[in-house]
Amino acid sequence: MCKTCNYTIHGAQHHFGWDNTLVPAQRVKPGATILFHCHDSSAGQLGASSTVADVAGLDFGKINPVSGPIFVEGAAPGDALKITIDSFKPSGFGWTANIPGFGLLSDQFPDPALTIWKYDPEAMEPALFGSQGRVPLKPFAGTIGNALAETGLHSVVPPRRVGGNLDIRDLAAGTTLYLPVEVAGALFSVGDTHAAQGDGEVCGTAIESPMDVVLTLDLVKDANLKMPRFTTPGPVTRHLDAKGYEVTTGIGPDLMSGARDAVSGMIDLLCATRGLSAVDAYMLVSTCGDLRISEIVDAPNWVVSFYFPRCVFE
Amino acid sequence: MCKTCNYTIHGAQHHFGWDNTLVPAQRVKPGATILFHCHDSSAGQLGASSTVADVAGLDFGKINPVSGPIFVEGAAPGDALKITIDSFKPSGFGWTANIPGFGLLSDQFPDPALTIWKYDPEAMEPALFGSQGRVPLKPFAGTIGNALAETGLHSVVPPRRVGGNLDIRDLAAGTTLYLPVEVAGALFSVGDTHAAQGDGEVCGTAIESPMDVVLTLDLVKDANLKMPRFTTPGPVTRHLDAKGYEVTTGIGPDLMSGARDAVSGMIDLLCATRGLSAVDAYMLVSTCGDLRISEIVDAPNWVVSFYFPRCVFE
Repeated sequence: MCKTCNYTIHGAQHHFGWDNTLVPAQRVKPGATILFHCHDSSAGQLGASSTVADVAGLDFGKINPVSGPIFVEGAAPGDALKITIDSFKPSGFGWTANIPGFGLLSDQFPDPALTIWKYDPEAMEPALFGSQGRVPLKPFAGTIGNALAETGLHSVVPPRRVGGNLDIRDLAAGTTLYLPVEVAGALFSVGDTHAAQGDGEVCGTAIESPMDVVLTLDLVKDANLKMPRFTTPGPVTRHLDAKGYEVTTGIGPDLMSGARDAVSGMIDLLCATRGLSAVDAYMLVSTCGDLRISEIVDAPNWVVSFYFPRCVFE
Repeated sequence: MCKTCNYTIHGAQHHFGWDNTLVPAQRVKPGATILFHCHDSSAGQLGASSTVADVAGLDFGKINPVSGPIFVEGAAPGDALKITIDSFKPSGFGWTANIPGFGLLSDQFPDPALTIWKYDPEAMEPALFGSQGRVPLKPFAGTIGNALAETGLHSVVPPRRVGGNLDIRDLAAGTTLYLPVEVAGALFSVGDTHAAQGDGEVCGTAIESPMDVVLTLDLVKDANLKMPRFTTPGPVTRHLDAKGYEVTTGIGPDLMSGARDAVSGMIDLLCATRGLSAVDAYMLVSTCGDLRISEIVDAPNWVVSFYFPRCVFE
């Protein structure tokens, strides 16, 4: 329940993919505050008792439901939708999976794998990974976006200039996000809530976790924004960084190869120093490791670094 | 002066480029602590009274001198050189330039430009940019590496698997760096000291600043490290993040294009909100803005984000 909310969008009011002809779940005036009940990105196909067999059997037609769409009165192409991210109410359950064919190192990890997480949604203390790992939590919505100008049904998987499956882990409570509007009413939707994720979401999934989300939607007329942008109210990594980082690098003429090398290096390091299996390390770092571009100008070689927070094991 | 140092490498003991036949400036035993006097990356061609004409006239044969090389006794191919980054003694002078043909947006910024910085090397308070900007400082060595196995003279500009021009801004005091060794003695050198830089070094230069550096060199035998890695002793962004970030994004199927779009978006934002010229904004964000890969799995589109610390202007 949200006392300050003007509207509630229930979990049944979701859709798969973006389509600017969808009937709005709600019409609102600019300034409206809305409670969204969000499914996890499996739309409930994975639960607390799921096993790796359930990952292999996932129905990809039911991946990544988003709650909405919301028609914001007065929103027109060229405006920006201003989204104040008010709060999250996490569920306490989550999952991380290696889904065959998906993820930065999908060629190296062909078999399905699954980690089930349980955390205290009130205390939000770090979630246990195996017997030794502790992953700090910071909820956000992985998918948050407007409908595209292009007609037809568009996959929810890729993010686009109007937002969508951005998977930006700093879109946490207190942040203000601006998204380009391309159709009348914006047709905004949100979902794919995560309890924690590192920059990159390298294995393809985060701590996928159903959640309630409270957002306030407003308009900036004629903003002519080209791509999403956002403002954070304060530091973004203090839940993670107190003990510093282990960092691996990838160096070469291609940023994608550099990212792959940096993540592979970290998996090797965690296997050697923490006794993890490779796929467990891969899933773990997806929830808390950060991909950064350290250097992008010293041609022909760039440096991509992967930062793993030492607090997870120390 | 460094009381705990075993050796001093003077500024005259520098070289341009990597060549594994160079005569060592010093032979040391593992565990030696060494004071390096480091030139700035222009080798003194730019100074406190330099103008933009001096940028146009830079002699590129004298770019990026590194102090060394150091022959570490017992170092052999397959080992890792363990470098404890003890301390920096900055000079108080620095420069940032847009050098034609160099930098992430070199096509958009064809003309030379120069910013001269002055800072208090004792207090290390944020350095003033124009009348309003304050850039937090954190010194590090942009170029730190070993000689390559390949014979001949190799440009110092690109970083490689043995390190070199890594430009990783978190190689600050207290950090431990591990570099692959490819030749007997490692033949380690260091230089290109920076008073501040953001992840990416997007305009191609940081706050380029001559500095003294104290390092301890040790060996990890048979480490078989593929790429550089490092361990930070604590948080890496607390000098920057207290007031949060403005963040712009680039979304699409190419990480390089995404990085360019994200940085362009930030330049537009700073021009609009802070009244900066575009090239001033470009140089400023190179000293303090961070390129991150927010999402690298939602094919076919990736998200690169550029984080500008709000403390610079707020």
